[in-house]
Amino acid sequence: MTGTFGIDHLPYGVVSTADGRRFVATRIGDDVLNLAGLPRHGPLFEQPSLDAFLAAGRAIWRAVRTELAEVLSDAQLASHRVPVEQTRNLLPFTVADYVDFYASEHHARNVGQIFRPGGEALTPNWKHLPIGYHGRAGTVIVSGTPVRRPRGQYRDGTGAVAFGPSQKLDIEAEVAFVVGAGSQLGSAIPVREFADHVFGVCLLNDWSARDIQAWEYVPLGPFLGKSFATSVAGWITPLDALDAAWVAPPPRDRPLLPYLDDAGIRGGLDLDLEVRLNGDVIARPPMSAMYWTPAQMLAHLTVNGASTRPGDLFASGTVSGPDGTQRGCLLELTWNGSQPVTLSDGTQRAFLLDGDEVVITATASAISGDRLHLGEVRGTVTAATWQP
Amino acid sequence: MTGTFGIDHLPYGVVSTADGRRFVATRIGDDVLNLAGLPRHGPLFEQPSLDAFLAAGRAIWRAVRTELAEVLSDAQLASHRVPVEQTRNLLPFTVADYVDFYASEHHARNVGQIFRPGGEALTPNWKHLPIGYHGRAGTVIVSGTPVRRPRGQYRDGTGAVAFGPSQKLDIEAEVAFVVGAGSQLGSAIPVREFADHVFGVCLLNDWSARDIQAWEYVPLGPFLGKSFATSVAGWITPLDALDAAWVAPPPRDRPLLPYLDDAGIRGGLDLDLEVRLNGDVIARPPMSAMYWTPAQMLAHLTVNGASTRPGDLFASGTVSGPDGTQRGCLLELTWNGSQPVTLSDGTQRAFLLDGDEVVITATASAISGDRLHLGEVRGTVTAATWQP
Repeated sequence: MTGTFGIDHLPYGVVSTADGRRFVATRIGDDVLNLAGLPRHGPLFEQPSLDAFLAAGRAIWRAVRTELAEVLSDAQLASHRVPVEQTRNLLPFTVADYVDFYASEHHARNVGQIFRPGGEALTPNWKHLPIGYHGRAGTVIVSGTPVRRPRGQYRDGTGAVAFGPSQKLDIEAEVAFVVGAGSQLGSAIPVREFADHVFGVCLLNDWSARDIQAWEYVPLGPFLGKSFATSVAGWITPLDALDAAWVAPPPRDRPLLPYLDDAGIRGGLDLDLEVRLNGDVIARPPMSAMYWTPAQMLAHLTVNGASTRPGDLFASGTVSGPDGTQRGCLLELTWNGSQPVTLSDGTQRAFLLDGDEVVITATASAISGDRLHLGEVRGTVTAATWQP
Repeated sequence: MTGTFGIDHLPYGVVSTADGRRFVATRIGDDVLNLAGLPRHGPLFEQPSLDAFLAAGRAIWRAVRTELAEVLSDAQLASHRVPVEQTRNLLPFTVADYVDFYASEHHARNVGQIFRPGGEALTPNWKHLPIGYHGRAGTVIVSGTPVRRPRGQYRDGTGAVAFGPSQKLDIEAEVAFVVGAGSQLGSAIPVREFADHVFGVCLLNDWSARDIQAWEYVPLGPFLGKSFATSVAGWITPLDALDAAWVAPPPRDRPLLPYLDDAGIRGGLDLDLEVRLNGDVIARPPMSAMYWTPAQMLAHLTVNGASTRPGDLFASGTVSGPDGTQRGCLLELTWNGSQPVTLSDGTQRAFLLDGDEVVITATASAISGDRLHLGEVRGTVTAATWQP
């Protein structure tokens, strides 16, 4: 099972154990390995957070990966292994700023048709720049954390303003990127310097209350429809594990400004996502279909001189492909609830019900030729209950 | 001069000195006082940041203010005083999440008319909820930090997509609120519990590149047009210094949902702002004219269950009054550049030129009956120069 957390992967996370320990770990097979036990780089992992490691920069990221590969089978490290069932993932780093993009043309076209019927599906700027917005860093939660159904204002079926638990709670299957080495205020990160700054990749579920979002988002964008929770996987896959997963992005049908020009760069990521709702696969979104690449997102984010910091998190936006089975959110899959999906238990879903469990997984080509399985992001919806 | 940093004010900041010291301080007259010298609460200020003090909660905020009033004139504290000219303000706390609202009806109507001519000036949601969005926490800078003119994409006069330094660099005169005591995920902060969570108030300049913003902001809101820099004052005025400044907000012409209902609460802040451009007063925006109050902003921000953290910063949006001289940004003052302002040196401004200095100040009623002068927010525009 080298494909599932084999030596070609070695993702990073932070775990807690039943006896109250918390430590930075890598995942190898069915074990986690406490990285404080590394002979050379152990001291970098004495805090239960990836923060120091993220800030250490690319040379150290590579040196740690090299050391891991060398010592992984050493008997002396056996005492630092713990069976994964005896651990729980914690949020692995301090999220600095969280930015969410809108990089799938298929998703943007579908949402445009649903939210602005009769108008152009894509806004005039869409092919010129990767549209993005800032989300709430403080409500990024780790996989496994329950998600309470949010409440808020929305328009009910009659168009009247209503208040209460969201009736259109949705998921967004996304791929996120974790900045390690930051950049100074007044500088920009060129497309070709992506790997000097980005530490790794993780799956992300950008839970969305579509009714709250639809009412609030004009003119300043999504706010409470998104800010209640954003789930990230507990395991961050280092870029170095994804060397075999880069592909050419889809052809662009508009010329790009020089700062976004990625001619000749294999800037797309060939990740095959799966979205499961209560165990049923409801979508298989292909990351390779994204119009904008992560390197373009980071170049755009910084082209105005905005600085970046270790722990900055930026996400792709919903990953959707051209096919109806490749849509990464229920808004698209059910066309705003009008075409519910039927689950194997015979029940239907327009949007999420209390108790529903959503799991997003993904695989990628590993250098070995096997499939690399990214850390899953999992969450269960709990009822909206509020103190008065 | 008790009005200018007198004993009725006692704001908090972090300063550095020429000899390399950095410490938390209060401002008293023309001196700053190193708070590590406080006999009882000194240990709370051993780090050069307000972070620990913010998180300590309202009882400690009040206890420190009480201690300060008691010991301020003690001879033993004299050694902890430094003339303010020998210090420089640093960013006083770690900004967690930054949210910007849009709470002035006069501003929203003016912007709506400028950006969406022929449409309704106010979007249908505007009177139902305080519209807001997340900004970039990592580019919040302290007063005095130069602001480099950002570059980016915009539409030129012919409608073609252009790239380069912003041609429409603007200010936004705002009032910001600093959260001290946070709140848990899944809980909301009622309007009446504002003062249990909010530590203090400071002026804020939300620098805005109007050309970049106009091109990018549909459908997900402002991003690079704002994210290059947001300036905050170096001195945070504690809520307790503003007890005499609260006023009834303007009458609301739509019923409010219960979570926003502030009937009987003096939730408005009577701050008189002044905006100076190269020394000339170009606007006098009245905070008392804001439709939405800060307590409503915080109640809305959390009504979906979003958590808050010490260091969360939320701002009012541009403060503009009904009168043409009360508009808090050049977009409104010059009606998107069509009616330039003339400065006393005879030059005109549609938007900011390189070298322009903007200073925002404000006064409020103090309990003593004097005027309290909030810490200014100052910034000078520098040219857009970029490494290749």
